Amino acid sequence: MGEPARQRIGLSPGTLLHIGERRLETARLDLIDYGPELFVQQTDCSADECLERCRQPGLHWVDLLGIHDVPLVEKLGRGFGLNSLALEDLLNTEHRPKVENFGDSLLVILKILSLDAAGSRLETEQVSIAVTGNAVLSIQEQPGDVFNGVRERLRSPKGRHRQRGADYLAYSLIDSIVDSYFPVLEQLGEILTDLEEELADRPQRATLQRIHTLKRDLMTVRKAVWPLREVVSSLEREGSELIEERTVPFLRDLYEHLVQIIDTTEIYRDSVSGLLDLYLSSVSQRTNEIMKVLTIMATIFIPLTFLVGVYGMNFDYMPELRWEWGYPALWLLMIACAAGMLAGFRFKKWL
Amino acid sequence: MGEPARQRIGLSPGTLLHIGERRLETARLDLIDYGPELFVQQTDCSADECLERCRQPGLHWVDLLGIHDVPLVEKLGRGFGLNSLALEDLLNTEHRPKVENFGDSLLVILKILSLDAAGSRLETEQVSIAVTGNAVLSIQEQPGDVFNGVRERLRSPKGRHRQRGADYLAYSLIDSIVDSYFPVLEQLGEILTDLEEELADRPQRATLQRIHTLKRDLMTVRKAVWPLREVVSSLEREGSELIEERTVPFLRDLYEHLVQIIDTTEIYRDSVSGLLDLYLSSVSQRTNEIMKVLTIMATIFIPLTFLVGVYGMNFDYMPELRWEWGYPALWLLMIACAAGMLAGFRFKKWL
Amino acid sequence: MGEPARQRIGLSPGTLLHIGERRLETARLDLIDYGPELFVQQTDCSADECLERCRQPGLHWVDLLGIHDVPLVEKLGRGFGLNSLALEDLLNTEHRPKVENFGDSLLVILKILSLDAAGSRLETEQVSIAVTGNAVLSIQEQPGDVFNGVRERLRSPKGRHRQRGADYLAYSLIDSIVDSYFPVLEQLGEILTDLEEELADRPQRATLQRIHTLKRDLMTVRKAVWPLREVVSSLEREGSELIEERTVPFLRDLYEHLVQIIDTTEIYRDSVSGLLDLYLSSVSQRTNEIMKVLTIMATIFIPLTFLVGVYGMNFDYMPELRWEWGYPALWLLMIACAAGMLAGFRFKKWL
Amino acid sequence: MGEPARQRIGLSPGTLLHIGERRLETARLDLIDYGPELFVQQTDCSADECLERCRQPGLHWVDLLGIHDVPLVEKLGRGFGLNSLALEDLLNTEHRPKVENFGDSLLVILKILSLDAAGSRLETEQVSIAVTGNAVLSIQEQPGDVFNGVRERLRSPKGRHRQRGADYLAYSLIDSIVDSYFPVLEQLGEILTDLEEELADRPQRATLQRIHTLKRDLMTVRKAVWPLREVVSSLEREGSELIEERTVPFLRDLYEHLVQIIDTTEIYRDSVSGLLDLYLSSVSQRTNEIMKVLTIMATIFIPLTFLVGVYGMNFDYMPELRWEWGYPALWLLMIACAAGMLAGFRFKKWL
Amino acid sequence: MGEPARQRIGLSPGTLLHIGERRLETARLDLIDYGPELFVQQTDCSADECLERCRQPGLHWVDLLGIHDVPLVEKLGRGFGLNSLALEDLLNTEHRPKVENFGDSLLVILKILSLDAAGSRLETEQVSIAVTGNAVLSIQEQPGDVFNGVRERLRSPKGRHRQRGADYLAYSLIDSIVDSYFPVLEQLGEILTDLEEELADRPQRATLQRIHTLKRDLMTVRKAVWPLREVVSSLEREGSELIEERTVPFLRDLYEHLVQIIDTTEIYRDSVSGLLDLYLSSVSQRTNEIMKVLTIMATIFIPLTFLVGVYGMNFDYMPELRWEWGYPALWLLMIACAAGMLAGFRFKKWL
Repeated sequence: MGEPARQRIGLSPGTLLHIGERRLETARLDLIDYGPELFVQQTDCSADECLERCRQPGLHWVDLLGIHDVPLVEKLGRGFGLNSLALEDLLNTEHRPKVENFGDSLLVILKILSLDAAGSRLETEQVSIAVTGNAVLSIQEQPGDVFNGVRERLRSPKGRHRQRGADYLAYSLIDSIVDSYFPVLEQLGEILTDLEEELADRPQRATLQRIHTLKRDLMTVRKAVWPLREVVSSLEREGSELIEERTVPFLRDLYEHLVQIIDTTEIYRDSVSGLLDLYLSSVSQRTNEIMKVLTIMATIFIPLTFLVGVYGMNFDYMPELRWEWGYPALWLLMIACAAGMLAGFRFKKWL
Repeated sequence: MGEPARQRIGLSPGTLLHIGERRLETARLDLIDYGPELFVQQTDCSADECLERCRQPGLHWVDLLGIHDVPLVEKLGRGFGLNSLALEDLLNTEHRPKVENFGDSLLVILKILSLDAAGSRLETEQVSIAVTGNAVLSIQEQPGDVFNGVRERLRSPKGRHRQRGADYLAYSLIDSIVDSYFPVLEQLGEILTDLEEELADRPQRATLQRIHTLKRDLMTVRKAVWPLREVVSSLEREGSELIEERTVPFLRDLYEHLVQIIDTTEIYRDSVSGLLDLYLSSVSQRTNEIMKVLTIMATIFIPLTFLVGVYGMNFDYMPELRWEWGYPALWLLMIACAAGMLAGFRFKKWL
Repeated sequence: MGEPARQRIGLSPGTLLHIGERRLETARLDLIDYGPELFVQQTDCSADECLERCRQPGLHWVDLLGIHDVPLVEKLGRGFGLNSLALEDLLNTEHRPKVENFGDSLLVILKILSLDAAGSRLETEQVSIAVTGNAVLSIQEQPGDVFNGVRERLRSPKGRHRQRGADYLAYSLIDSIVDSYFPVLEQLGEILTDLEEELADRPQRATLQRIHTLKRDLMTVRKAVWPLREVVSSLEREGSELIEERTVPFLRDLYEHLVQIIDTTEIYRDSVSGLLDLYLSSVSQRTNEIMKVLTIMATIFIPLTFLVGVYGMNFDYMPELRWEWGYPALWLLMIACAAGMLAGFRFKKWL
Repeated sequence: MGEPARQRIGLSPGTLLHIGERRLETARLDLIDYGPELFVQQTDCSADECLERCRQPGLHWVDLLGIHDVPLVEKLGRGFGLNSLALEDLLNTEHRPKVENFGDSLLVILKILSLDAAGSRLETEQVSIAVTGNAVLSIQEQPGDVFNGVRERLRSPKGRHRQRGADYLAYSLIDSIVDSYFPVLEQLGEILTDLEEELADRPQRATLQRIHTLKRDLMTVRKAVWPLREVVSSLEREGSELIEERTVPFLRDLYEHLVQIIDTTEIYRDSVSGLLDLYLSSVSQRTNEIMKVLTIMATIFIPLTFLVGVYGMNFDYMPELRWEWGYPALWLLMIACAAGMLAGFRFKKWL
Repeated sequence: MGEPARQRIGLSPGTLLHIGERRLETARLDLIDYGPELFVQQTDCSADECLERCRQPGLHWVDLLGIHDVPLVEKLGRGFGLNSLALEDLLNTEHRPKVENFGDSLLVILKILSLDAAGSRLETEQVSIAVTGNAVLSIQEQPGDVFNGVRERLRSPKGRHRQRGADYLAYSLIDSIVDSYFPVLEQLGEILTDLEEELADRPQRATLQRIHTLKRDLMTVRKAVWPLREVVSSLEREGSELIEERTVPFLRDLYEHLVQIIDTTEIYRDSVSGLLDLYLSSVSQRTNEIMKVLTIMATIFIPLTFLVGVYGMNFDYMPELRWEWGYPALWLLMIACAAGMLAGFRFKKWL
């Protein structure tokens, strides 16, 4: 499983196929049952067990790590009321963020962003979150720590999570993903500052590649965040029976965070294209300075070399060669010549 | 037939004329009759036969290969309720994708995209799909394999196609064309990655041409996909009596695929214009480096050459030439001079 | 008459003044009376005669060539129900395309585009078309062949024109003008292809000028077509009592043609600005190559020239000059030196 | 009075302060009373007199020259029903064009544009026009001839002005200002054409500065015209009790003139940025040609100079120097060498 | 307190945390009670005291300097009816300007802009203003003089402030901040003019950095002003029970000021990117001129140097060396050669 897009051609719409890289050996299914008085966490459940539990009272969070196990994803998805078109989207890790409303369940697809250790390439991971009246299903491509904070807060009996419904859990999963965009942006901002200093100090060929990479990373952030903003905006505006009234202000807050991320991304994108201009201008300026040095040197010495060449000739009749003061006179002439040149350059403000 | 646009001037609107290249010797007409219990495929029918059959119960798919046979296209088109303006559009292979609603029939014009073997030039082929309550007419410029998957699925008695109406068949024809855009985009993406590596490694004059070609190909994709998005969007929103309620989610899914294609195209277009900047900066940087080498060499050796020229002169009175240590002293002077220059360059960070 | 815009200042709005170049010696007025059974063509009528005839039954097409005869234009215009503001616009040949609805008459102003023989400069001519219930008035700046096709079709007793009203005649006049844009675009497209080949082959200074001219021509097309699209769109959407229901699909078709022209223009504009980048990159690349040749030649020969200069000096004490193998040894040294340089250049991939 | 913006900080909103340059020694107040049968012009009135007269029957035009006399402006403004916020805006000569509706009076702020004699810098002057049911107040910064035409037409007893209300007078004041934009645009267009020719002929450093100035002037036009378009559009659409029905077509005509000015400005702006690219490309091309000359000269003569250097050495044992045909042989070698170089350059198409 | 964004991840939404730099040692709380007959100012109050007073009749302005004291901010905020999401935003000094309506209180977040003494870097400070029916709470990061004018006017018993409600006070706080943007813009405009002169006079490497800094500063202004415009626009349009009818015209005036600031910013941004092009073109032009000098010098002297080299050779048989007029003839030849070169350059318009 995990096939390139071109294998999809000719397949019936709704055929389930994992598109993308397989990032995990085996899928893992965790289940948390919770409520005002209740918190039970269970790892490595089976799909049937999970769906069975979700039919019981209380709230439930089914967390699936590993998207490549298509039958498992399908069973869980169908249990959460998703149709095959939605499952097809969810299995395609290159799908853009979206929300789909099935009346008694809601599917949100979004992206986790992470910079690798060297900070050079931005990676995206797809996360799908399905909500019903009393349960949340989250599907990640690989284990990560982005949901740890939520798990922690669920444990606390006094926390807001325990008092609220499944919609609040789903919101806080999305919120924790959106919060994780900020440090990524900060890192990109640091790379940007680095590049600016590098440009001011000593532009190199590699700087160009780094600018290009940063530009592409910002494009990736944009591709992840713009559609998500629409998703959150439509959730907030249109609402759904699954979203309680008191969750709406949180969605509005989330929306503002996304707008702030978009603003910052746009400013960074603007700065990056400014950097390229700066690089080009800076290289031109340096070429100009190099040319100046060459031209000054050449312009001063080329006529002098010609003159000494003249008196190196072997003609039988060259009266100057016989003069007693010929040699010092030539030196005087050459010094005058060079001084004139230098004065000319100073007049042209090249020196 | 197959005439350039300038021959249209002065013709009455609705005059039928094939505009474009003739890609096939003779047109071919295939017919498939199908239904929940039925599947009959017949090749090389006549137009009258097809239209006669379409009046009988069951569902029908008339597949015409070859658009240059204007009378044949006209007879079929009129049989499917198209007026002469629509036929004029359909025969103009440079027409932009559109949908037209004639009440009891619906016409969709769209494009097939394909990269030639060398991957260097993107070609478009026009496909027109007309739907009535119980029949679909598809008109292609030349045979291709894009509809093979649909034909295959029609054969399977349990498939969704056999249970649904003509609108679903039309949808899946469009869907298979849209699905065929993805591998084209993947190929363009690979060309883009190639170009990036080529630029980083060793930019050449040909690279420029390849960037320009890629840019134009992306423009072609854009020209095909943007209006198609509007087509699908208007089908989904406004609907038609010909489109069953249960087909609408499939149209929404199709719409999302088109949005994803557009997103990717825009990102590629952005990257391509970045590549041009990169190329220009990279060439400037290399010119700068070349100039540096030249300037360093010239600046060091030009004064030295002048000096040796001085002592190659033939003046009768040149005291230095007579000194015993003149020659070694000059060498020392020249070495000091060159070392000073080198130190200067190192100070300027040119070395 | 035909005055520059600055003469308008201080005049009362609605003062009639021909703004633009006078392109014709004397104005000419042609009249066609037609109907299902009738076709009478008469050239060189007087204005009064025309207006008198228009009051009689049947349909009438008054065709005025020459816009500079302001009193004539005014008399005809008033006869077709135009007010002085509209007449002022119509006489200003730099006015942008527009439609104005006076209840019982309708005025459309639009542009004819034509490339001169050398294909280097795009010229615009203003055409105004006024329609009442039973007559059409067309005003051109100079005679042209763009309406010949319409005249031809009017002659044919079975043609659609003879069966329809004045609105259809007005539509087909506009349609024939819009159809005439396509060959102009095709010519511009050919110029674009020429320029691309010229750039790939051998960019010259004149190429730049041609790119700039093409860019301006595309701007002119844009300026003529964008407002016309709005005109046709508002005619189609808002309608008028003067436009029959059955003419509306033709307007929609016209609208689509205009959208296609706009699409093509935008793609050309994009390509043209790509060409400028290409030109700049290409010149930079060539400068880079030239610099490489110069640097290689200079870097190899400058040190050698220095060396031979050394042994051309006339010091009394230069032991090397006395050695028997001095001369061949120097040759060896120089060859080694040059070979080292060449190896260095090959290492830097300059060769 | 006439203070820079930074002196406004900390002042209460509505505090009246003249912001801008003081352009006139003393303010002057003119009054025209007119009606179908009446025309009385009086110069140098006092504010009280003017306001008194405005309360009498007939129509009145109060024309104030000089904006720096804040108490005078305030008294007149209050008399015409303007509040302090509006007066504050009107006194700030950097305020953007706007319209404000106070129920029984209407305030329009707009700009006069003028190029100085050298045609190098565009200047703006602010004009404010307040209308009540029977009077118009116009406030200019300095005397100018832009309203002369209106005054002239008011004098004519048969003119449209005498038959219409104050709204028509206000309209024609605005119209005469908008008409005065056209010659400014024409002058800018001529500068643009000049610059294009200059670029094609012989680009210089000063050309760059002129392009930049033209760009800024176009920005100024844009800043004056865009908001004015909104002003006129809102007057036309929303109307006011002060604007008679029969004035609306004139406003629509005015709106179209503004759209035409905007179109032209945008096309000029586009051309100007094209000029900069053209300049840069042209300079690059010239540098390339200069480099070619240098490289050809250097590449041909550097090896030859090396060769003659070789035979200028003073080694005791140089057999070639003793050969009888050594000298002519060297000449042959050098000519062959130069010819080879030239052939190489011709092959590379540098010659 | 004052933590980077990345420490927020995993925290529950609504957790209060100061994000940003701590700019003050200890927070300070000032209180002004005022009314038509009343004005009492008290510095260094406690939070409880303030809230207690706000419950009494009269109007109250609580001014908090220092945002890092989270419990203090929270207590005051809760007292003014803000929820924890709003408090979270208000504590995040990187939050974008916004307005939030809580029914009986209203929160506006906005930015103070200030250029440091050297005029090189633009700093932003966040200000939050909460309004209830009878009190205003303003929270600044550090003491500043932007509210001094308001304080002054509050003191004056006849001033408009004393007659109006808390909404007018809040408006005038926002207004004084917006007024403070104008001098910042003026300073940026002066920097822009400086840069233009510097470019025209003598472009340097540092100029580039200054252009880049100015560009970023304009970005910062934009980021502060754009959302604020939306804030003011939504306050004006949607209103609130807290905003009296008579305050609305002031909000409209404020809105217009913001639009003017945005216009100016956009024009500056446009000019700045024009400066970069100008810089690049100017450097290219200078390189071109330098190359010309070099090429002219080299082209004239290189052949001459070759010639003198020829007659410096030591061949035994060189007849020219023996001719009596060889030496003057060579001079003539060389002068002719140089003159020819110069004529050629003049022909090419290089001189």
